[in-house]
Amino acid sequence: MTDCIFCKIVAGDVPATKLYQDELVTAFRDINPLAPTHILIIPNVHLASANDLAPEHAAAAGRMLTLAPELARQEHIAESGYRLILNTGADGRQEVPHMHLHLLGGRRMQHPLG
Amino acid sequence: MTDCIFCKIVAGDVPATKLYQDELVTAFRDINPLAPTHILIIPNVHLASANDLAPEHAAAAGRMLTLAPELARQEHIAESGYRLILNTGADGRQEVPHMHLHLLGGRRMQHPLG
Repeated sequence: MTDCIFCKIVAGDVPATKLYQDELVTAFRDINPLAPTHILIIPNVHLASANDLAPEHAAAAGRMLTLAPELARQEHIAESGYRLILNTGADGRQEVPHMHLHLLGGRRMQHPLG
Repeated sequence: MTDCIFCKIVAGDVPATKLYQDELVTAFRDINPLAPTHILIIPNVHLASANDLAPEHAAAAGRMLTLAPELARQEHIAESGYRLILNTGADGRQEVPHMHLHLLGGRRMQHPLG
């Protein structure tokens, strides 16, 4: 997607603090962090939202989730805890139309959730 | 895990309103819903938290995420939107020590997130 900011980050055409990248996923710091640790984990392929997830994206989706605890350990928040959030559509308050998983930690998350 | 309530739900030894089950994952309604739609998606294998996710769990993790939009369509909230949340540890406010993904929809989620 030529107009997608996250696709440009994947391609290296827009700068970002990348923490991980492989053939399926890319992780980078949110430029407007809502917690001491705020990382976005995205599929390299352009999926406008989780609604576009199909069975053929299972490998990328699995990598997104299994990468999260690895990043949490690197950030030294695995033991203190963290929250993963994936927003879809208006009610989910999704802001960028390229599916992304938020990894938030370094502070106590809100309760109740959602 | 003999003492784990979610393992017992997977096994059918504790009643739950199951919406989906296969060899990798189980989805059922949260008994204390925080939104008009509140579903939990869990791996059948006992993982105490996301910190226990290893590369061999990628298939189950991928299924958890790809199942979410299917359930959202069944609940008629795919277009209005929804939020997926996975809490880990104290800062994440994880309550049941068997990894679970919350699917919340049917109302506008909070902003800012986390």
